Amino acid sequence: MSQLYASLFYQPDVTAIFSDHALLGYMVQAEVALAKAQAQVNVIPASAAMIIEQVGQNAVAQIDMDALATATGLAGNIAIPFVKQLTALVKQQNEDASRYVHWGATSQDIIDTATILQCRDALALIEQQVQQAYQVSLKQAQQYRDQVMIGRTWLQQALPITLGHKFARWAGAFKRDLDRLHAMKERVLTAQLGGAAGSLASLQDQGSAVVQAFAAQLNLTVPACTWHGERDRMVEIASTLALIVGNVGKIAKDWSLLMQTEIAEVFEPAAKGRGGSSTMPHKRNPVAAASILAAANRVPALMASVYQSMVQEHERALGAWHAEWLAIPEIFQLCAGALERSSEVLEHMQVNADAMQRNLECTHGLIMAEAVMMALAPKLGRLNAHHLVEQACQQAVAQHQHLKTVLSNMEQVNVHFNDQALDDLFNPASYLGNIQAQIDAVLHAAQGE
Amino acid sequence: MSQLYASLFYQPDVTAIFSDHALLGYMVQAEVALAKAQAQVNVIPASAAMIIEQVGQNAVAQIDMDALATATGLAGNIAIPFVKQLTALVKQQNEDASRYVHWGATSQDIIDTATILQCRDALALIEQQVQQAYQVSLKQAQQYRDQVMIGRTWLQQALPITLGHKFARWAGAFKRDLDRLHAMKERVLTAQLGGAAGSLASLQDQGSAVVQAFAAQLNLTVPACTWHGERDRMVEIASTLALIVGNVGKIAKDWSLLMQTEIAEVFEPAAKGRGGSSTMPHKRNPVAAASILAAANRVPALMASVYQSMVQEHERALGAWHAEWLAIPEIFQLCAGALERSSEVLEHMQVNADAMQRNLECTHGLIMAEAVMMALAPKLGRLNAHHLVEQACQQAVAQHQHLKTVLSNMEQVNVHFNDQALDDLFNPASYLGNIQAQIDAVLHAAQGE
Amino acid sequence: MSQLYASLFYQPDVTAIFSDHALLGYMVQAEVALAKAQAQVNVIPASAAMIIEQVGQNAVAQIDMDALATATGLAGNIAIPFVKQLTALVKQQNEDASRYVHWGATSQDIIDTATILQCRDALALIEQQVQQAYQVSLKQAQQYRDQVMIGRTWLQQALPITLGHKFARWAGAFKRDLDRLHAMKERVLTAQLGGAAGSLASLQDQGSAVVQAFAAQLNLTVPACTWHGERDRMVEIASTLALIVGNVGKIAKDWSLLMQTEIAEVFEPAAKGRGGSSTMPHKRNPVAAASILAAANRVPALMASVYQSMVQEHERALGAWHAEWLAIPEIFQLCAGALERSSEVLEHMQVNADAMQRNLECTHGLIMAEAVMMALAPKLGRLNAHHLVEQACQQAVAQHQHLKTVLSNMEQVNVHFNDQALDDLFNPASYLGNIQAQIDAVLHAAQGE
Amino acid sequence: MSQLYASLFYQPDVTAIFSDHALLGYMVQAEVALAKAQAQVNVIPASAAMIIEQVGQNAVAQIDMDALATATGLAGNIAIPFVKQLTALVKQQNEDASRYVHWGATSQDIIDTATILQCRDALALIEQQVQQAYQVSLKQAQQYRDQVMIGRTWLQQALPITLGHKFARWAGAFKRDLDRLHAMKERVLTAQLGGAAGSLASLQDQGSAVVQAFAAQLNLTVPACTWHGERDRMVEIASTLALIVGNVGKIAKDWSLLMQTEIAEVFEPAAKGRGGSSTMPHKRNPVAAASILAAANRVPALMASVYQSMVQEHERALGAWHAEWLAIPEIFQLCAGALERSSEVLEHMQVNADAMQRNLECTHGLIMAEAVMMALAPKLGRLNAHHLVEQACQQAVAQHQHLKTVLSNMEQVNVHFNDQALDDLFNPASYLGNIQAQIDAVLHAAQGE
Repeated sequence: MSQLYASLFYQPDVTAIFSDHALLGYMVQAEVALAKAQAQVNVIPASAAMIIEQVGQNAVAQIDMDALATATGLAGNIAIPFVKQLTALVKQQNEDASRYVHWGATSQDIIDTATILQCRDALALIEQQVQQAYQVSLKQAQQYRDQVMIGRTWLQQALPITLGHKFARWAGAFKRDLDRLHAMKERVLTAQLGGAAGSLASLQDQGSAVVQAFAAQLNLTVPACTWHGERDRMVEIASTLALIVGNVGKIAKDWSLLMQTEIAEVFEPAAKGRGGSSTMPHKRNPVAAASILAAANRVPALMASVYQSMVQEHERALGAWHAEWLAIPEIFQLCAGALERSSEVLEHMQVNADAMQRNLECTHGLIMAEAVMMALAPKLGRLNAHHLVEQACQQAVAQHQHLKTVLSNMEQVNVHFNDQALDDLFNPASYLGNIQAQIDAVLHAAQGE
Repeated sequence: MSQLYASLFYQPDVTAIFSDHALLGYMVQAEVALAKAQAQVNVIPASAAMIIEQVGQNAVAQIDMDALATATGLAGNIAIPFVKQLTALVKQQNEDASRYVHWGATSQDIIDTATILQCRDALALIEQQVQQAYQVSLKQAQQYRDQVMIGRTWLQQALPITLGHKFARWAGAFKRDLDRLHAMKERVLTAQLGGAAGSLASLQDQGSAVVQAFAAQLNLTVPACTWHGERDRMVEIASTLALIVGNVGKIAKDWSLLMQTEIAEVFEPAAKGRGGSSTMPHKRNPVAAASILAAANRVPALMASVYQSMVQEHERALGAWHAEWLAIPEIFQLCAGALERSSEVLEHMQVNADAMQRNLECTHGLIMAEAVMMALAPKLGRLNAHHLVEQACQQAVAQHQHLKTVLSNMEQVNVHFNDQALDDLFNPASYLGNIQAQIDAVLHAAQGE
Repeated sequence: MSQLYASLFYQPDVTAIFSDHALLGYMVQAEVALAKAQAQVNVIPASAAMIIEQVGQNAVAQIDMDALATATGLAGNIAIPFVKQLTALVKQQNEDASRYVHWGATSQDIIDTATILQCRDALALIEQQVQQAYQVSLKQAQQYRDQVMIGRTWLQQALPITLGHKFARWAGAFKRDLDRLHAMKERVLTAQLGGAAGSLASLQDQGSAVVQAFAAQLNLTVPACTWHGERDRMVEIASTLALIVGNVGKIAKDWSLLMQTEIAEVFEPAAKGRGGSSTMPHKRNPVAAASILAAANRVPALMASVYQSMVQEHERALGAWHAEWLAIPEIFQLCAGALERSSEVLEHMQVNADAMQRNLECTHGLIMAEAVMMALAPKLGRLNAHHLVEQACQQAVAQHQHLKTVLSNMEQVNVHFNDQALDDLFNPASYLGNIQAQIDAVLHAAQGE
Repeated sequence: MSQLYASLFYQPDVTAIFSDHALLGYMVQAEVALAKAQAQVNVIPASAAMIIEQVGQNAVAQIDMDALATATGLAGNIAIPFVKQLTALVKQQNEDASRYVHWGATSQDIIDTATILQCRDALALIEQQVQQAYQVSLKQAQQYRDQVMIGRTWLQQALPITLGHKFARWAGAFKRDLDRLHAMKERVLTAQLGGAAGSLASLQDQGSAVVQAFAAQLNLTVPACTWHGERDRMVEIASTLALIVGNVGKIAKDWSLLMQTEIAEVFEPAAKGRGGSSTMPHKRNPVAAASILAAANRVPALMASVYQSMVQEHERALGAWHAEWLAIPEIFQLCAGALERSSEVLEHMQVNADAMQRNLECTHGLIMAEAVMMALAPKLGRLNAHHLVEQACQQAVAQHQHLKTVLSNMEQVNVHFNDQALDDLFNPASYLGNIQAQIDAVLHAAQGE
């Protein structure tokens, strides 16, 4: 992707984790852990492992990136030429030690393990981001729990809700995202070490001991089996991120719609150079929403690629594994970018209570028809109340009058309800059902942890 | 989809759950639960709930399906005309009770809850299917733990493995699928009840009590908030199924490749009318694999649709919700179909040990070059051994000789290894690394539960 | 898919073409054409072809659908058991003729050719639909060419346009869709006849003559080669439909946004049972838009499946071909459904000119800031004009005044522009650029054909 | 994407076109063309256009990329900060001229037009690549027209074909790709110029003249209407590339399967550092195929994104337009990478005629059963011949004998066919149907142009 767009779609820390240099660093980490694990189990000399570890400390800086890129095109993966360069670096220190670099491993062991290490670090950041978005949403749910606004369904005004209810629902989604992140960690953050065909044949009877020591070095879980061709772990990670992106996309969709000039209920926080237009002074482009919605368009498509890439051939696949390399880092980066932008907007969202009030009024009382009907029912009978309100609505629309005005002129109504009583009936805040209880439920769930 | 193809791609029980009739049944179930819950909380008369429940028992049979289909096109969802017909049926029994049908609910409450009920029943079947596939794979991992075959990477022969190792890896994937199914249940099998805009406004201060009673009636979890517009639960269900389909697709890909005429190591079980050809008597078409691979092509694409559909507008969405109705049932049906076919093949797979042996021989010993090199190293020195074996491989290829023959004629070799010793070295079964330990790890994990 | 939803998402005529019965009819048509072509080239007796043709006339009604469905699951495709049943029907008439049913063909020849015949008929309907949508859009572009409304970008009010300009842009898109439909026809509507491996081996030296006669019988183009494994024709058809769906989706998105309660500029035509709500009398749910937007969510995902399915193995594929059977008919049906709904809405769209006027006013003149600045520039100098208008905008926003009021109080302005002149400047109709020329260009392009 | 992977998945020339620097160059080109067009129509002074053109010549080198990247994140697109920097550069030369930079245009005009210019240049390269792949395929179709090999369906051996037939089918696909590229050019390579809301309002009555001059400057077609929100042109470009990728993916799938160790009929050309393994000397990893198959997995998914992104809001969209920026360049790069790798393999493919012969023999004559049956039919009667051959096949399989041996021992057979006659019958080259005619048809179609 164009580096110019990185500031628009990505988040720097997560992008750094998936940079070429960082990837090489994780691969070095995997090779060093392999050597140390094998020394521990007496598969290779301790001295060799020590030298490999020493060389590893500065290895990334010494890698010839251009040569690596060229060789990758021929070799079909990054690990084969990387191991050659790493081995040469070790050989400069100690020829004997260099023979034990990458001992018994296959390219995919190193790439998969390095990818899992990237995922772990990036998941930690993303978990922080989701946690932040969750906390902000909780705070705002409390802050705006009584801020009445119209609820909208099918893009039409429906019944009143509060802005706090929106935040509470979003907070609930972030909580489920956190639960998912926690639930999968142990299952997916697993070392990969199988050698050429998954059998670790060249390690003979020490394979399993090496795998355990290797995983322990890296603080990853130990797989029962090698998983070169069974990719559900990688895809589960991606699918959890895609759920987060979907949740964030929904939120950005909401605020972008609420920012429409005619609605104007909330706004992304203002900043110099963000979203304004010199010749159109009224514009407040939802720039953060645009970026998030682009991510929420793209990540689902990338998921089609990663699910499809599960159909792998035999012990190690052709092409499907490659497809992961392109999709997984990008899903992480888009997810982190979307979270960063959404947290900032959620925290500093500008709320226009006047516009909310104005929009509550724009149907001239029709949004309260149901509320009124239910209040009349005990006095007039349900059927009668329904009939009366329906008739009043038609009249209000036809004569461009407020529904309250129409009703206040109806004798059947005004014998029971004086002006003050009618005003109360038409107060949107009086018809919010169990919204406060819902908000409380979300707040309590948060405290329960 | 064409009904003609149902037998090829679907599984009857899960398809039945997602039939039009069954869907109406689940909607009736939701409406009856709603009435009973409201009676319990004294929102509606107990007598009304009783009548609604009675009518519900035969309601589906009395629904005018054609009228319903026509009205759905106008109403934009199935629930609006369904509630009308249901109300009319109740009215035939008791006019008063009919006023309490669907009390306080919105269409989406009933459709979402009915869908969750479908999902629960279908997930129960799918969990059984995965469990069966897991048990079969465990049994076959044990059965074939010593059946040596060549492992293949990048579609090329690599090193020997055993068929049991393949089954163990597949069993491991099924186990993770089971873990995922268990882990998500409580989070996703949740009732939906929010009324027109999520506030249950018409139930006033009894909303939350009704939601709890409603969920209890249906044995679903109680949501903190309504989730009309936050769809991660539905998408999480789909994503878990997509992981299963991906795992099954990988397995089908493997056996379809192993069934190739030139390889012929395993076969789908034979059945009359399956996969044969009268004019091409040698053909054994992998019919089950074709069906599963089609599902594994299609489900990832459907996932792009469902992830995308998370970007919903406001309190209830326009179009994105509709997109779920098309995708979710199909993902279930394709998943169940793929599992059914794969379990049958896994259980009754025909294994051709002779062909496995023949294919192990087809490189004339080259696949054992690494094993031989490692055996020579202690006698000749590692570098020397490497050089010698490399040279021998080149000669074997150039002269179309078996690598063993070439080596047995090399003095450096035959002073250390007589014919019997060389035969042992070239025995694929002697170079299987930690495969038995991996199989045991999978078997033990199964017993640990 | 649920039949209940067919009325919501599909179009009956195109759905009929892809019904199971119709598919069998097309397959019969292919088999009859094959027999007649072979009789013509003297590969089979003319009498046999005649009997096959006769039996073909009533064959579909006599097919045992249940048996066919069951056998399809085993055979892996519909043609194998279909040919068996068809042969049996011919045999009832004439045992000798029955031997020539399906002579030299493979299952895929019949299924692919039948599918192409379905596509041809369905494309003809869809072309009519696009033509209709095009004509309606042209008419409305003319009708509303002067109906001023605000143009919106990034969901924000930008500058005035006319409703006719919207229709003209949409008409332009439909024209390009028509061009694409025309351009591909000859390339894609091609017969398939290759026999078991694409060589028509059993027809010996008469293969090419039979292919030509076969294609001529069906009025399809003759392929240079069999295309069992090269699927770009099928996918090109689907991709052209997907472009149509995308164009229609954009239009539906627009009108659904314009129907928002606060905007209320256009509406889907009213109909009994469509989109209304008894308890929320102000609601006008955009039901047609919901259906179209669901299609525009789903078809892109199905395209991922069909593009992916191009990666086929060898002479005829495993699974990828199957995936087409599920996707292609659905793309057709969703496209036809989306077109039907959109044509109706485009033709009978309710336009609320008052609301358009009201929304043009809602920024209190800010949307005309650029227009005013450009008018002041010749009098005051460009920089000075820019500075002045910017200042006036800030004052207007801060003091909740109309921009015109602010400007009319500025001496630098009112020396040059009296009230009438200012009124003219603030008339959105005076700032429409080349919109009329654009509309004319589209209308002329239509007449040019 | 990692730069390390560029050599594996991309093609340098096309990647250069989509680099950040090149993009800025195309944007400068658009701004210069705009100024010159406006000078030509007397909208801006000719001197201003001349200065803008002069500055444009070195503008890219002077752009502060870091500042641009940072500002893009705030502005929501690259054009806003780019125009600021460009204006500042012009201002350094001439303050008056700087006022006419980007005159009357909106960001999207420049980005869309620049993208179309990128597409034009990249399409020219891709057309060359497809042309090259077409010519190579034609040459190889001729070269290998008589090279018999087994045809395979459902991954099973079917009947003999020739390698030239494969190449001819692939050539046919490339020809259709070329036809598609030609057919769309005029429709899609269209200038974009509409100003803030598509009306070019600030250009008053000169808008259309400017658009024409602008398009002429850039040698692009003139749109009837602005197309800020109607994106079918961009998506049509992408869909044509996706068809190419699908065709290439099918070819790569074939050769990767043919390279399997047990089949070994063709190989990717050998090169140092490509696909070999030091410890597994028999391996020939299909590295080019892996790269192409990864592209053929990924591009379909990206297509889901671009089709979905057609659903845009109003006059200019939010987020959906952004999604294009990520997808379109990548589809181009993956397509060009896949074509480059496939042309090289098609041209230098290593063909192992011995292995083809060996594989034709591996069913011990069963693949010729149909041929034999058809030869016996005239002598023995069709039914009798069918029965006899079926019986012989069963015996051949049961007794591990060659079918020819079994038949030669049957009296009914050997009275009609002596050993030489049977040998001829069992010669795969004698049962190739109309394959030569198909190859000729493809070759003639090529000459017809």
